Amino acid sequence: MMLEQLKEEVFQANLELPKQGLIKYTWGNVSAIDRDKGLFVIKPSGVDYETLTAEDMVVCDLNGQVIEGKLNPSSDTPTHAVLYQKFPKVGGIVHTHSTWATIWAQAGLDVPAMGTTHADTFYGSIPCARFLNQAEINQGYETETGNVIIETFERRNIDPMEVPGVLLHGHGPFTWGKDAKSAVMNAVVLDEVCKMNLFARELNHFAETLPQRILDKHYLRKHGTDAYYGQK
Amino acid sequence: MMLEQLKEEVFQANLELPKQGLIKYTWGNVSAIDRDKGLFVIKPSGVDYETLTAEDMVVCDLNGQVIEGKLNPSSDTPTHAVLYQKFPKVGGIVHTHSTWATIWAQAGLDVPAMGTTHADTFYGSIPCARFLNQAEINQGYETETGNVIIETFERRNIDPMEVPGVLLHGHGPFTWGKDAKSAVMNAVVLDEVCKMNLFARELNHFAETLPQRILDKHYLRKHGTDAYYGQK
Amino acid sequence: MMLEQLKEEVFQANLELPKQGLIKYTWGNVSAIDRDKGLFVIKPSGVDYETLTAEDMVVCDLNGQVIEGKLNPSSDTPTHAVLYQKFPKVGGIVHTHSTWATIWAQAGLDVPAMGTTHADTFYGSIPCARFLNQAEINQGYETETGNVIIETFERRNIDPMEVPGVLLHGHGPFTWGKDAKSAVMNAVVLDEVCKMNLFARELNHFAETLPQRILDKHYLRKHGTDAYYGQK
Amino acid sequence: MMLEQLKEEVFQANLELPKQGLIKYTWGNVSAIDRDKGLFVIKPSGVDYETLTAEDMVVCDLNGQVIEGKLNPSSDTPTHAVLYQKFPKVGGIVHTHSTWATIWAQAGLDVPAMGTTHADTFYGSIPCARFLNQAEINQGYETETGNVIIETFERRNIDPMEVPGVLLHGHGPFTWGKDAKSAVMNAVVLDEVCKMNLFARELNHFAETLPQRILDKHYLRKHGTDAYYGQK
Repeated sequence: MMLEQLKEEVFQANLELPKQGLIKYTWGNVSAIDRDKGLFVIKPSGVDYETLTAEDMVVCDLNGQVIEGKLNPSSDTPTHAVLYQKFPKVGGIVHTHSTWATIWAQAGLDVPAMGTTHADTFYGSIPCARFLNQAEINQGYETETGNVIIETFERRNIDPMEVPGVLLHGHGPFTWGKDAKSAVMNAVVLDEVCKMNLFARELNHFAETLPQRILDKHYLRKHGTDAYYGQK
Repeated sequence: MMLEQLKEEVFQANLELPKQGLIKYTWGNVSAIDRDKGLFVIKPSGVDYETLTAEDMVVCDLNGQVIEGKLNPSSDTPTHAVLYQKFPKVGGIVHTHSTWATIWAQAGLDVPAMGTTHADTFYGSIPCARFLNQAEINQGYETETGNVIIETFERRNIDPMEVPGVLLHGHGPFTWGKDAKSAVMNAVVLDEVCKMNLFARELNHFAETLPQRILDKHYLRKHGTDAYYGQK
Repeated sequence: MMLEQLKEEVFQANLELPKQGLIKYTWGNVSAIDRDKGLFVIKPSGVDYETLTAEDMVVCDLNGQVIEGKLNPSSDTPTHAVLYQKFPKVGGIVHTHSTWATIWAQAGLDVPAMGTTHADTFYGSIPCARFLNQAEINQGYETETGNVIIETFERRNIDPMEVPGVLLHGHGPFTWGKDAKSAVMNAVVLDEVCKMNLFARELNHFAETLPQRILDKHYLRKHGTDAYYGQK
Repeated sequence: MMLEQLKEEVFQANLELPKQGLIKYTWGNVSAIDRDKGLFVIKPSGVDYETLTAEDMVVCDLNGQVIEGKLNPSSDTPTHAVLYQKFPKVGGIVHTHSTWATIWAQAGLDVPAMGTTHADTFYGSIPCARFLNQAEINQGYETETGNVIIETFERRNIDPMEVPGVLLHGHGPFTWGKDAKSAVMNAVVLDEVCKMNLFARELNHFAETLPQRILDKHYLRKHGTDAYYGQK
């Protein structure tokens, strides 16, 4: 069997989704990549979490073709494949319909940085990508979803490692990270930040976004060469 | 004992209601039908979930008359009976007072399709049925509740298998599906969608409903002859 | 030891408060009365639930004086005493600071009947009692709290067995019932109804209250001589 | 090993944060001080709660220098050190990004006393401290955060033992108490009060703050020389 350890990591990361309250039933998927082999491992489509095992994880190449596995991979596999192709530093990807991030996705709004909870993980606004048009849907919905994410980051000149997540208008969030575990953690942060920002603005319609100096301080004390958070 | 396996399925589906956070105490009921025998199995009325067993499930005919069982069936049994009569493809039915669906029922509003979470299960708006009038209440509240649901789907020309749920104004949701388990799953989706839509509109009063092309794509990739979601 | 079984019931009902999510720490208290003996049993004040036992329950008379028990009774004991004196059919009483009922109490508003979840338990609006004045506070805060509740029901001519609960402005809810268990159940319903009504009005500022005919139907199918809900 | 019992208390208090729903992952920290020795014990930075042990707690002096411990202390250690220096009666300190308190922090608003849940613990409004300026960030973000808290209490003439908590604009809450356990309890109260107040004002935009006489009564029946709440 290929990529046994990666399958275990991806399996555990998928189990973390319901534990963290990010999904109900099977409404989510996590993958992770072995960059040396150019292969990624992803959850199979629509299998109950109670019966899911690490061995059920499916191995795909960067075109989203199944290399190993008896089950169909997640229907969102082509989106993962595009992201791994175009974001070369990404090691793990998560898609959920988590409540509060999906609310922002349904509202069609970028998530502004309003607090240090945001700044500790996301270095600036989290963009909301546009709806796909009919031509894109016809051409291949899941692949084009990946392309619209890429377009969003390129047009706005956002570094995907500094802002490791996106909302899809009318759909929900994708997040990523250096591996499956950190991608899940970023999904948790995104959902919490979406909840906080919604109610902060309800409480005070004139609530400011975080001053740039505080955003810089919090992001840079955890990320980059001068970071001093955590253990070495 | 009759319909032993169906009783077990209905019992398990009833236990799923508090596990999924859809009900408190006994505020809900699930039933499922054996179409060959023309009999359905339903939870008894007002029995604590701690003491409930599969054998306590009550067997009724399509007029809602008890065929087997020592306990009174759910007081909502006549509503279930009407739905089984008039919606011939329905295999299982759920009634709850789940928080967010009940909020929309109390608001008296249809639930618009605002996201793909909705579109994956419900092919369009979920209707809110009107209040019963005094004559209908006098005639038989629970039977007439079923008739008002039927009226709602007929007048608006909605296929109950494409939109497997309804809100009762001032009351709460009914959902259904091919069996008890899928009816419960649809109840979970409905409640979550009601929560998301409420806050999406609070966040952005001008939030759009999902474009028809995305609604089509998501519903049809999971349902119908060209579906490609899940395992074959 | 006196009233051993009642102590066990009151103890269990107190444990139910955190299980149902109605309280954090020790922010609540339940009591129940033995009408023949004219004595009620109540939780001691400020004792951790982890170390609490049935034997710790305190026995008081209708003046709120301790008859048996090594610990101080709840500081709200005089309020319970007044309610037992003036509402002779009450068998159990609960006080919490449960989130949504307290929100309505802080808003200083009566809770209108907007749905059948409300109508199944409360036959009409749940009143919000006024703030105590300085003279009443000086005279005995907890006793006068009970008197203000009595005043509220008398002035508005509400039957406390038909509307088994009240909000105290700026404070939180009291509920009651035929015994401790049903008083807790009414506290659960009140909190849920407060949550639903708040969001129903946010969703639709013009959301109607429940028509009287539906309120009658739901309350009377569960309560009174023609009730047909549950098992006989 | 130093301060073994205090380490155990601080460890347990840190574990209480996720149990009470105040934090996700490691987004929080608790410390407690031994006033005789002038040393405090604090959680290490960014260590998973699953692997954390009491022995991992770090001992620091009042300048925030590590006296004992193999791991880096929380990055917020200098803030704790300042608070212990300037608030001489404080025995334990908690920092979280708990949802509702952080929402108020992001809104940049003081938390008014709107109910007795607040008055039982906080004797008046809970202040929101200002953003740090660039010079303060450059000089030492965490130490200056402590100084801005001190400034807030001094300028407004608030006794930190009567109002044992603060919000940091755009960040989140700090709370404190006589020991680690009570500091956590105050963090729970603060979060709950923030939730209640937000929705009370949404429900009724004209909802009053608690009259001074009720605030006095509730605070003083639990605190000070005439307190009569709990066991002696």
